[in-house]
Amino acid sequence: MTYCVGLMLKQGLVFMSDTRTNSGVDNISTFRKMFTWDVPGDRSITLMTAGNLATTQSVVSLLEERSKEPGERQPGILEEESMFQVATMVGNLLKEVIATHAEAGQRADSTFNATMILGGQIGDGEPRLFLIYPEGNFIEASFDTPFFQIGETKYGRPILVRAYDPEMSFEDAIKLLSLSFDSTIKANLSVSLPLDVHVYETGSLRNGRLFRIQDNDTYFLALSSGWGIALKDAFGQLPEFSFPEP
Amino acid sequence: MTYCVGLMLKQGLVFMSDTRTNSGVDNISTFRKMFTWDVPGDRSITLMTAGNLATTQSVVSLLEERSKEPGERQPGILEEESMFQVATMVGNLLKEVIATHAEAGQRADSTFNATMILGGQIGDGEPRLFLIYPEGNFIEASFDTPFFQIGETKYGRPILVRAYDPEMSFEDAIKLLSLSFDSTIKANLSVSLPLDVHVYETGSLRNGRLFRIQDNDTYFLALSSGWGIALKDAFGQLPEFSFPEP
Repeated sequence: MTYCVGLMLKQGLVFMSDTRTNSGVDNISTFRKMFTWDVPGDRSITLMTAGNLATTQSVVSLLEERSKEPGERQPGILEEESMFQVATMVGNLLKEVIATHAEAGQRADSTFNATMILGGQIGDGEPRLFLIYPEGNFIEASFDTPFFQIGETKYGRPILVRAYDPEMSFEDAIKLLSLSFDSTIKANLSVSLPLDVHVYETGSLRNGRLFRIQDNDTYFLALSSGWGIALKDAFGQLPEFSFPEP
Repeated sequence: MTYCVGLMLKQGLVFMSDTRTNSGVDNISTFRKMFTWDVPGDRSITLMTAGNLATTQSVVSLLEERSKEPGERQPGILEEESMFQVATMVGNLLKEVIATHAEAGQRADSTFNATMILGGQIGDGEPRLFLIYPEGNFIEASFDTPFFQIGETKYGRPILVRAYDPEMSFEDAIKLLSLSFDSTIKANLSVSLPLDVHVYETGSLRNGRLFRIQDNDTYFLALSSGWGIALKDAFGQLPEFSFPEP
């Protein structure tokens, strides 16, 4: 499993992804699921992946190939002129990779499927955030629906819905995402630290802060234990229930 | 969809279930998913159901039939001598009903499946809580795993995991379950008020408080809006994130 969230703020975009992959509970590994590209002054692009690892790695390798050898397969992720065109390209690539593997072998339903979150900004365009489906089509976030989740999305959703604020600072956004990940990690063994984080500031047109929250990160641990206490306090402050008259 | 929780406390058992059933988003109805039986001084039994409505109603009708005409099909739910035997009987009945319908018609995977939470106390036995699978087998709760959820379980789980305490009062348990249901209702259209509640007090050997939290319940509404504010406060009290040194 996997958990990734892309969050749209007035200030920019924040991405967080876990790094655990598993094929059964006795076969777990750590793989990066967040990939970034930039051409300073022109664009910053972030891609996060969930689903079949062979599929997602293949898509990313093809994108890397395209980005490294721009002459070979025009236009690559560094040449497309808008985020919409990048999303279209990534969607097509994803669909092709799934189709290729599905032809060759196993027919099991959705085995080779993958879903992706793509976000970034190119040139004069606004920052944009997309959710790309295995069929190659995609939807775009707006301030009505300001975040996308992929993978194990449910445990971490209530806190996002309750505490998200489009005006929040990047620091608060990372705190919020950390809580959402903590709830998910507590409930699903196949989601785990370390977590990759990328913070893109609107208009900067270059990758922003990119870092990894490690297993033993003191802030994350403090947040996790503090949240348990804070939730109990919050619970205590709510009005008491009293039984209805029989 | 459905959401039901059975919770084990030192003081007794608390059950809560929603009442929405749906077959597509344009075909929703209200059906009771919680059923109780008691013989005062001897036993109290509660059953909650999730899954195919035809299956669950059929199981409950058969149980009612058995309970109403004890001579016909011995022993019924009011005659079994332990909660374990009741769980075995309900599990077998569930398996039979699924098998009967599966033979007759549609072959779609898991279409007729259902899952149930069964709890109660009989005679000198301890209060017991079971989760019954469509295959007819079941698992039992203990204070290591003091609650069972069926239906749309994920959204409402983090708050249960964080705030549950085996020593908590019935009033606090209902408050906690209400929050868990509120998180679920906010995220999944196919879970909805009214909610049915049953509180069974250990050793009472009769049904306890049985009531319905209606759509316009002022306590539930106050809790729901208060929880949003309390969560934001709790969020604000947690330590601030600061970016690592580059």
